Amino acid sequence: MDNISNIFHNDLLPSLGARANQSIKLRKFIISPYDSRYRIWETFLLVLVVYSAWIYPFELAFLRHLSWKLFLVENIVNSFFAIDIILTFFLAYLDHKSYLLVDNPKRIAARYLSSWFILDVCSTIPYQPFGLLFNKHGNGLAYRTLNMLRLWRLRRLSALFARLEKDIRLNYYWIRCTKLISVTLFAIHCSGCFIYLIADTYPDPSRTWIGAAIPNYRSESLWVRYVTAIYWSITTLTTTGYGDLHAENPREMSFCICFMLFNLGLTAYLIGNMTNLVVQGSCRTRNFRDTIHAASRFAARNQLPEQIRDEMLAHICLRYKTEGLKQKETLDSLPKAIRSSIACHLFLPVLEKIYLFDGVSFTCRLQLVTTMEAEYYPPRETIILQNETPTDVYILVSGAVEERIMIDGREKVEKLLSGGDIFGEIGVLCNIPQPLTFRTSRISQLLRLNTTVLKNIIQENKHDKEIIMNNLYQVSSQLFYHYDIVFR
Amino acid sequence: MDNISNIFHNDLLPSLGARANQSIKLRKFIISPYDSRYRIWETFLLVLVVYSAWIYPFELAFLRHLSWKLFLVENIVNSFFAIDIILTFFLAYLDHKSYLLVDNPKRIAARYLSSWFILDVCSTIPYQPFGLLFNKHGNGLAYRTLNMLRLWRLRRLSALFARLEKDIRLNYYWIRCTKLISVTLFAIHCSGCFIYLIADTYPDPSRTWIGAAIPNYRSESLWVRYVTAIYWSITTLTTTGYGDLHAENPREMSFCICFMLFNLGLTAYLIGNMTNLVVQGSCRTRNFRDTIHAASRFAARNQLPEQIRDEMLAHICLRYKTEGLKQKETLDSLPKAIRSSIACHLFLPVLEKIYLFDGVSFTCRLQLVTTMEAEYYPPRETIILQNETPTDVYILVSGAVEERIMIDGREKVEKLLSGGDIFGEIGVLCNIPQPLTFRTSRISQLLRLNTTVLKNIIQENKHDKEIIMNNLYQVSSQLFYHYDIVFR
Amino acid sequence: MDNISNIFHNDLLPSLGARANQSIKLRKFIISPYDSRYRIWETFLLVLVVYSAWIYPFELAFLRHLSWKLFLVENIVNSFFAIDIILTFFLAYLDHKSYLLVDNPKRIAARYLSSWFILDVCSTIPYQPFGLLFNKHGNGLAYRTLNMLRLWRLRRLSALFARLEKDIRLNYYWIRCTKLISVTLFAIHCSGCFIYLIADTYPDPSRTWIGAAIPNYRSESLWVRYVTAIYWSITTLTTTGYGDLHAENPREMSFCICFMLFNLGLTAYLIGNMTNLVVQGSCRTRNFRDTIHAASRFAARNQLPEQIRDEMLAHICLRYKTEGLKQKETLDSLPKAIRSSIACHLFLPVLEKIYLFDGVSFTCRLQLVTTMEAEYYPPRETIILQNETPTDVYILVSGAVEERIMIDGREKVEKLLSGGDIFGEIGVLCNIPQPLTFRTSRISQLLRLNTTVLKNIIQENKHDKEIIMNNLYQVSSQLFYHYDIVFR
Amino acid sequence: MDNISNIFHNDLLPSLGARANQSIKLRKFIISPYDSRYRIWETFLLVLVVYSAWIYPFELAFLRHLSWKLFLVENIVNSFFAIDIILTFFLAYLDHKSYLLVDNPKRIAARYLSSWFILDVCSTIPYQPFGLLFNKHGNGLAYRTLNMLRLWRLRRLSALFARLEKDIRLNYYWIRCTKLISVTLFAIHCSGCFIYLIADTYPDPSRTWIGAAIPNYRSESLWVRYVTAIYWSITTLTTTGYGDLHAENPREMSFCICFMLFNLGLTAYLIGNMTNLVVQGSCRTRNFRDTIHAASRFAARNQLPEQIRDEMLAHICLRYKTEGLKQKETLDSLPKAIRSSIACHLFLPVLEKIYLFDGVSFTCRLQLVTTMEAEYYPPRETIILQNETPTDVYILVSGAVEERIMIDGREKVEKLLSGGDIFGEIGVLCNIPQPLTFRTSRISQLLRLNTTVLKNIIQENKHDKEIIMNNLYQVSSQLFYHYDIVFR
Repeated sequence: MDNISNIFHNDLLPSLGARANQSIKLRKFIISPYDSRYRIWETFLLVLVVYSAWIYPFELAFLRHLSWKLFLVENIVNSFFAIDIILTFFLAYLDHKSYLLVDNPKRIAARYLSSWFILDVCSTIPYQPFGLLFNKHGNGLAYRTLNMLRLWRLRRLSALFARLEKDIRLNYYWIRCTKLISVTLFAIHCSGCFIYLIADTYPDPSRTWIGAAIPNYRSESLWVRYVTAIYWSITTLTTTGYGDLHAENPREMSFCICFMLFNLGLTAYLIGNMTNLVVQGSCRTRNFRDTIHAASRFAARNQLPEQIRDEMLAHICLRYKTEGLKQKETLDSLPKAIRSSIACHLFLPVLEKIYLFDGVSFTCRLQLVTTMEAEYYPPRETIILQNETPTDVYILVSGAVEERIMIDGREKVEKLLSGGDIFGEIGVLCNIPQPLTFRTSRISQLLRLNTTVLKNIIQENKHDKEIIMNNLYQVSSQLFYHYDIVFR
Repeated sequence: MDNISNIFHNDLLPSLGARANQSIKLRKFIISPYDSRYRIWETFLLVLVVYSAWIYPFELAFLRHLSWKLFLVENIVNSFFAIDIILTFFLAYLDHKSYLLVDNPKRIAARYLSSWFILDVCSTIPYQPFGLLFNKHGNGLAYRTLNMLRLWRLRRLSALFARLEKDIRLNYYWIRCTKLISVTLFAIHCSGCFIYLIADTYPDPSRTWIGAAIPNYRSESLWVRYVTAIYWSITTLTTTGYGDLHAENPREMSFCICFMLFNLGLTAYLIGNMTNLVVQGSCRTRNFRDTIHAASRFAARNQLPEQIRDEMLAHICLRYKTEGLKQKETLDSLPKAIRSSIACHLFLPVLEKIYLFDGVSFTCRLQLVTTMEAEYYPPRETIILQNETPTDVYILVSGAVEERIMIDGREKVEKLLSGGDIFGEIGVLCNIPQPLTFRTSRISQLLRLNTTVLKNIIQENKHDKEIIMNNLYQVSSQLFYHYDIVFR
Repeated sequence: MDNISNIFHNDLLPSLGARANQSIKLRKFIISPYDSRYRIWETFLLVLVVYSAWIYPFELAFLRHLSWKLFLVENIVNSFFAIDIILTFFLAYLDHKSYLLVDNPKRIAARYLSSWFILDVCSTIPYQPFGLLFNKHGNGLAYRTLNMLRLWRLRRLSALFARLEKDIRLNYYWIRCTKLISVTLFAIHCSGCFIYLIADTYPDPSRTWIGAAIPNYRSESLWVRYVTAIYWSITTLTTTGYGDLHAENPREMSFCICFMLFNLGLTAYLIGNMTNLVVQGSCRTRNFRDTIHAASRFAARNQLPEQIRDEMLAHICLRYKTEGLKQKETLDSLPKAIRSSIACHLFLPVLEKIYLFDGVSFTCRLQLVTTMEAEYYPPRETIILQNETPTDVYILVSGAVEERIMIDGREKVEKLLSGGDIFGEIGVLCNIPQPLTFRTSRISQLLRLNTTVLKNIIQENKHDKEIIMNNLYQVSSQLFYHYDIVFR
Repeated sequence: MDNISNIFHNDLLPSLGARANQSIKLRKFIISPYDSRYRIWETFLLVLVVYSAWIYPFELAFLRHLSWKLFLVENIVNSFFAIDIILTFFLAYLDHKSYLLVDNPKRIAARYLSSWFILDVCSTIPYQPFGLLFNKHGNGLAYRTLNMLRLWRLRRLSALFARLEKDIRLNYYWIRCTKLISVTLFAIHCSGCFIYLIADTYPDPSRTWIGAAIPNYRSESLWVRYVTAIYWSITTLTTTGYGDLHAENPREMSFCICFMLFNLGLTAYLIGNMTNLVVQGSCRTRNFRDTIHAASRFAARNQLPEQIRDEMLAHICLRYKTEGLKQKETLDSLPKAIRSSIACHLFLPVLEKIYLFDGVSFTCRLQLVTTMEAEYYPPRETIILQNETPTDVYILVSGAVEERIMIDGREKVEKLLSGGDIFGEIGVLCNIPQPLTFRTSRISQLLRLNTTVLKNIIQENKHDKEIIMNNLYQVSSQLFYHYDIVFR
């Protein structure tokens, strides 16, 4: 059971469940794909993949004679991938039907042999060493072309990006950009190498794109030749096309045709992705602008007093700032039992300090907290207006709220409520219009309890109702005499 | 009546209704457009259309003298299209008002003659053979230009793509891409041929785009000349514009102006389509990221215990994985009678195994199943929390659920429920807070039955109510003594 | 009052209210902007605007000596615009506060003088004739530059496109495209003319873009020079940039810099618009695909019988086809009184033929029709399932519905209902599960009446209730005996 | 408390709260970031930032010897930024946790020193004057390169644009465009300067991009060299790439490669932004078109009488025109107390003039106004239809409404209601179908009061109910006799 839960986290959210990976028990010699050491090995292989992606096209085009140092490095790299092929036979995999890790060696082997085994082997065989047995010259065009099979390793990079896009610890925007830049750079590198290869193997050097521009190009340094090839490649990819370097013979033209067709697609894909990211990025700011704009115009058209206008705008600003929290949406999308757990954890301690619910049964309290909603209010915003129909009871969690009473047309602050106070309960429980105005004096977090829901709950718990009404009477009786309100 | 139903499937969904095509009875000698043999004929013609799209512009520009082989091939192709014209007079068509297949030969003929008949004939007449009667030289510019009328056949391709886009067996993304690539390739091919034709017919060969670059271009092989023309075409289309080949005289400039204007539109159209596809593709991943992100931040900000956080994230992950199923949306969009049929088919067998509904009438059962909702729950998620207000009854279809009880502040697993068990019914039917906690121990599929709906149904069926309460009493009485719960 | 209503139509919907224009009574000599003769005059001016947009940049660059023919044409064109300036003083305008036509000559004059009068006059003064008084040579650079002021007339085109975009008789897609193409062509024409002017006025002809390519360009025909300029312009705008023609001196480079900056914006704007249009266009097809796909997978996963699957798909296809009708959305967005009028018009005649409502009061009927909803059902779809809880009564407007009864586990068609029949009323009015199954046998249009609404209406009209129950009893009594259903 | 409120306004909405800035009391010598004098200072610095962004790349590339005038100007500019560094130590800042201004000098200093202090100092040190102490030649490449650090000041511009985008006084579209144009211009300027620098420092002047085109380029004027560099830069950025100027050596090629990669990103970003803006801009027009289109087709298909069709279209047009007001959305998004304040302010004066609520208590009136909704109706639209079920009471605020009665099948206008009249109340309060038709005769603003809400309010206030029914009786009794309606 633990496994399943961990797998969920790992598959989609590699980081979140990381701490629990050690608990998975697999057969002996079988490695979990979520093992941290295996993850390090994978990351290390990715570095080698990037190296392979760069070196093999480069070698194909520019390195007629392989230096012994490079030859050694290549064979070491290949041996690492050979080790990985062997490791894969001991690597548990996630069954996509049951969401369980499979650690049966036979099933692992069967799955691997029937999927990517052959391609993995082909991309790992050391062709040059084999070639040396028959041929003195170890880096002929044939061997270098066979090396291109090693680019199969790039599928690991593609899998990495798919995983990173879902990793919430990383910024989606930058992951997408990195991916696009990587693809572009690889396309530029490859096409640069290929076009050089075509020129290099053409019989008449003066009728090649590079030979026409630099007559003795073969005597130039490797750096100059590589930069020239890349320069041609990017000039074509970005469709700048200066024309100082251009195809000279039908073979080069054919390659250019293919490359330009590919570019058309790549450019469209790049722009499409960027548009996608830009549209997302600017969405929130624009919504905020529209809302503020509508509110300002509404206030101006209806000549609302300055105070009401300020309350409106402050409220919208606060909502914009706290919108990122997405409190309500997050809670609403969860099933009821989880929501109840969260509400218990967050609101029960608050509820225990409220005089009104002193002595109330645990069941009733539980029912109350599950129906509460947390809200933020900006400073100087009216929460309850004197004389309005009571619809909600509020509990102040943090911040400060002023209790105001209108006497002879002038508002007077009666009391300053602080965290742990409840207000609006008199109107609701006595069924009278709210006798007082309540307004925030600083940023306040409130719990809101709907009248109908509250009444239903206390109706069903007769005993608790008595306790609540008693609590209310003891505290408010004084108040009622004060304001001459008849208790109905 | 059968026809209508089949037509629905075929028109929009060629594959789904395919098995039913044979049942359509039409007049003798009249062919149904959904006949599988006619479909094969149509597909065969499409191959010829692609061939025509390539050969006629090519012939116009490059083939001054038509070889006898090619001449033969062309006339055979034309004759196939001539046969199709005759066939169309025997082809039933779908009336767009009544959605019925019309098989009246007169109406078929009238419709065809008044729509595309003339254009179809013009695109099929063999101009060269006629020309040969008067003129020895069978491929003059006039005949080749007349051949361009054959491109009218491309409308079949356009109709094909419109149909494929609606075919759900194929990936929308790749259909769109294939369409865009086809249009681009055709544009490149045509413009390459036209620009060569313009150069070829210009009086001064040295003042043409190709003559300025390759002085004796006419002595070059057909392959070199074609590649050069295509190279110019794609260099211009992708706006690379190296400048090694460029317009030299006003005639070529005029053509270039038109082609570049067209390119501007085509490029914008390509990018627009790609953006559209990219935006769609990334939509789901981004939504998932946003939801997980909001939930993680919510948990961190409110310092929720690790267990609740894990439940939240596991739930969101499962929802993401099963979102593709779109179960609820699919059902909600259907009319009530279909939904009822589906519910009967899926849930009645499950219901029959539940002890609570043992002996209940068929009508009552039918009403119960139509209001049930299927849901998936990830492992280790709390479904019902002890003491919460009962709102739903759950039936476990597959998976496993633990029945837990809180004794002295410690939770203890009482029982492990498996497929076919019902839970939550005690709280609902006895109107008491849920006496037990229920939580999944592995991925579980549940049927949810809303309290209010359940009560309404058993209220209306007095007799069934007695049976249900009796069933409940027999099984639960033991339980009630055990937990000291008073039966109200 | 009539005026206001007409104005609404005209301002946003020029065509719809056209027939009512004649009824507007304005002061003598004051012209209504919705007068059809004035519309013709405006359209005629637009042709002259297009001519102006082309001729003045062309004249500026290419025509050193104005031919007498062209001089005459120009002055005639100018005089038409002069007439329009005078006409504007007699043209009523729409006040944007009161939505009333203002026909007070003083207010008209004040408004015109304070807005565009001066610019209109400047773009109409005949500079050349004035110049001829002092100078023999009537088309000096100064006069030609002053002529550029006439491009101010283009604001009429911009206003036209804004209006056309809102005209629903035209396709939005093509209007947008035409606008974009017009802007692009005008940009190409202007920049081509300007770059030629710069070359033409440069002291050293060999160091200009055209002089470097065509040494004696001034002796070339007007056509060659114009095509060359346009060719340069579009090569730059599409960023092809062959390089055969390019800036040679700092003056040309400065112009190029500005033009390329402008192009960057224009290209982005073109692509943005195209993306916008493509996204819209493909939206509906994709939604349909997604829905069908989800439904197919739902059926496959749950192994639904083929018949239910076909019903599901047929329903979705029909909804897609009739979605364009947007019946429900249109009605819902209208205020209640209009909806009532429409319902009366459409459904009252149908209701009069129903046996159940025979003899019912007009008030009751009116209330019934306003709550009905029209729906389409595909052939062979079950509307009511035997034994399900009754929720709706249906009236068959057109098509055919089979009444089926399940006897001994086999369904039997009892009756074929046709237009004007009502069904489902027995279950609803007798409060029993539906005794029969009803399913369409061809495309059917139904009116749906919700049970709750129906009961509320007949509850409030006691007398009508008796009539309805009596109607029901007379017709159904026979049926009840037949099926052994007890009348509760 | 005042501070908090002001901060809200200022942070997001610099303008709205501007009038209240003076009221913030901070410690002596501490400056508020919202002080208008500090704002002016900031704006002044922005001008210097723009100057710096232009001058330093230019100086790096083109000015080998700095004139004494420019030297003086630069040092003055630097000294202003030095002053700003000192000022920042006295500048209160907004704490992002508490939303309070912090004016404690130690905390201000600690925050500044730990964030941007070092970079600010580095971008302000006058390198040349220091250099002059050791070296006669005050503008060596080293000093000019160090000057590039001053571009760090650009972060101020970036912050400005982020703020301007949220400022609703400015048009979002133009702010975005200005930002994009600024970025593009800066990229062009910088790359132009850098490529010139690379050419200028290359050992062989004839093998540089500029030397190849203009052999003695160093003897050309500064203007010619600058324009040529910018021309190269923009030719590359827009991917025009004429090829008249192009990289000649590996060093230039390397720079080109980097610049073109950057361009690819910039172009995609520009197009993405433009698409975003275009999509937004055209959204409303398209929605309107779709709605009108659906309504027209609905009317045509159902052959609705012309009058109903006109009412439908007029209603949709009015809604489109007033949609910008977003009245309802704005109100709905506000909390209840603010909505109540607004309703009191707007509707109480209207309610006081209504005969029906004459003498009604203030509490009851307050409850009535908070439930009212304001609506606009176009001319000649039916609001209440004779005989329909009463659902709303309307109060006419402005405009005119005709009271019509159907006698013998012909409608007759009984009375013309004007501002301050109420209608529909007879049907609602007497529970009878509406006895009269009401239709607007010009644009009218109405307050709508839902029947259910109205009944609930007067049910709870027994005394007020009597007053209202009495008011109704006195005014309507006459009417009732007239139309023979029985008072139930």
